[in-house]
Amino acid sequence: MFTAFIFPDILLYILDMIGIVACAIAGTLLAQHKGFDIAGCILVAMVNAIGGGTLRDMALDRHPLFWMTDLNYLIVITVTSLILQIFANLYHKIDNALKLFDAIGLAAFSVIGFNVALDQGMLPVIAIMMGVWTAIIGGLLRDIICNEIPLLLQREIYISASIVGSVTYLLLEHWGMPARLNEFIMLSVIFAVRMLALRFDWHLPSIRLVG
Amino acid sequence: MFTAFIFPDILLYILDMIGIVACAIAGTLLAQHKGFDIAGCILVAMVNAIGGGTLRDMALDRHPLFWMTDLNYLIVITVTSLILQIFANLYHKIDNALKLFDAIGLAAFSVIGFNVALDQGMLPVIAIMMGVWTAIIGGLLRDIICNEIPLLLQREIYISASIVGSVTYLLLEHWGMPARLNEFIMLSVIFAVRMLALRFDWHLPSIRLVG
Amino acid sequence: MFTAFIFPDILLYILDMIGIVACAIAGTLLAQHKGFDIAGCILVAMVNAIGGGTLRDMALDRHPLFWMTDLNYLIVITVTSLILQIFANLYHKIDNALKLFDAIGLAAFSVIGFNVALDQGMLPVIAIMMGVWTAIIGGLLRDIICNEIPLLLQREIYISASIVGSVTYLLLEHWGMPARLNEFIMLSVIFAVRMLALRFDWHLPSIRLVG
Repeated sequence: MFTAFIFPDILLYILDMIGIVACAIAGTLLAQHKGFDIAGCILVAMVNAIGGGTLRDMALDRHPLFWMTDLNYLIVITVTSLILQIFANLYHKIDNALKLFDAIGLAAFSVIGFNVALDQGMLPVIAIMMGVWTAIIGGLLRDIICNEIPLLLQREIYISASIVGSVTYLLLEHWGMPARLNEFIMLSVIFAVRMLALRFDWHLPSIRLVG
Repeated sequence: MFTAFIFPDILLYILDMIGIVACAIAGTLLAQHKGFDIAGCILVAMVNAIGGGTLRDMALDRHPLFWMTDLNYLIVITVTSLILQIFANLYHKIDNALKLFDAIGLAAFSVIGFNVALDQGMLPVIAIMMGVWTAIIGGLLRDIICNEIPLLLQREIYISASIVGSVTYLLLEHWGMPARLNEFIMLSVIFAVRMLALRFDWHLPSIRLVG
Repeated sequence: MFTAFIFPDILLYILDMIGIVACAIAGTLLAQHKGFDIAGCILVAMVNAIGGGTLRDMALDRHPLFWMTDLNYLIVITVTSLILQIFANLYHKIDNALKLFDAIGLAAFSVIGFNVALDQGMLPVIAIMMGVWTAIIGGLLRDIICNEIPLLLQREIYISASIVGSVTYLLLEHWGMPARLNEFIMLSVIFAVRMLALRFDWHLPSIRLVG
């Protein structure tokens, strides 16, 4: 925790990579389930892990895209996907860890997307949207490629956790919270909401009034 | 109609918003049918309403994207989607209005996409394509996310109505029609073709010659 | 072959167009199979033929997109798609030629995507990825629109043929091979790997270890 205030960027980078690993695992698992070959699995892992950030950067006109200059992203995804394909039995040992990793990824991706948009001079509403975008588009694209109805649009606390975190950030910023600490609070809020949602089986309702 | 020649931009903006409302309704309805939650329905409504314009702006390198500086788009979509989700029985009262709104949207989106491309110095053929693109990509993305085969590619007069309008514009421009008036004629032609296609059940054929 | 060393750009352009024709045919056939109308078939043909290059140019911030200034792409796609729709029985006569065309397209698209990325100052790994991207994203988007599970991710030698070609180029470049000749070797390697894979029924395995 102490490190967080001295090297917050490094902390965020590590959390980001944990999220990348979680997405690469999720992508590889679904791709394997669909019978894709080695290259297909790695491709779906990549789409899942960097698809959201890629579309965010393209929408915000940030070039080169984040993974084009920092090859760690592609390396981590490829290695993760290959390890999981080779040691398929590994999955059962990481099932619970995956949910944790996934929640870390949701938080880190949201914070990064939100900050990137603010840095580009976007309005707060757009920044909230870009946080959501970075966090969920990868999973959405994975489901689209694999011909599945996106689960995260059905009844999962993903989008709302990201929005709650962003709104918390904006409120605390309004009340004078320093940016670094605020980022860390936003991260914790999103992570907490997601983990609580998993623990207590919270869902966003779908409204179906019959007229 | 008189207003159209004094404040044509405002008229086009209003027609654009009517199209946005129609797309938000169509997106929300399909998302609800698929069992998506509140946030999922709003997301699909957004994809349907601004997906085409977003991809058009990204393809033409127009930044920031149109909805990033004018928040009315996101507000109108969110409010429309929420109202429809809360008052689901409302739908039956607007069924016929929806087709009208949708035709207005097709016309307005085509005119906007076509003009934006010409303003960026694109060739006429590319401008025609960008009109089509703006008008249909949103619905295409909605169907893709919801795992449906895109209806508008099957036997609907959408793409052809947009093309007929653009070609009319180019012909009249060649013959000296003033731009403002021409824009209004293009809008009317697309709207008329779409409404006539609905009324008389016109379809573009699919050619299937057995050899 | 002699021409290849005098007018290599023209040769590459011709091979590129052969690939475009192959993609337009593949897109039209699947779209017809799905019951799309004339406009829908042309749209799917376009997505298949220029979707990969479009996303590559957007990711690399190259504007205007390649098909916006050179209308030959749109014309060749539209004409190919229309001819195939009108003379559906033509297909049976070109079934074998299609596989050849498709392999030429894979090679030409890979070389173009790879070179474009290097020209933009990208790292070699990113260039390899852009070669793959240009060659396969179009087919991926076609399958997504038509609601099919992408065949090329299942057990086809596509991605790996493109990567083998790019790696060959980088190795030969390191050993001093002149760029023009090297490009031609890369093209031949990809084409050869793809044709051999078809001939001898090579597949990339999918790893499924039960734990």
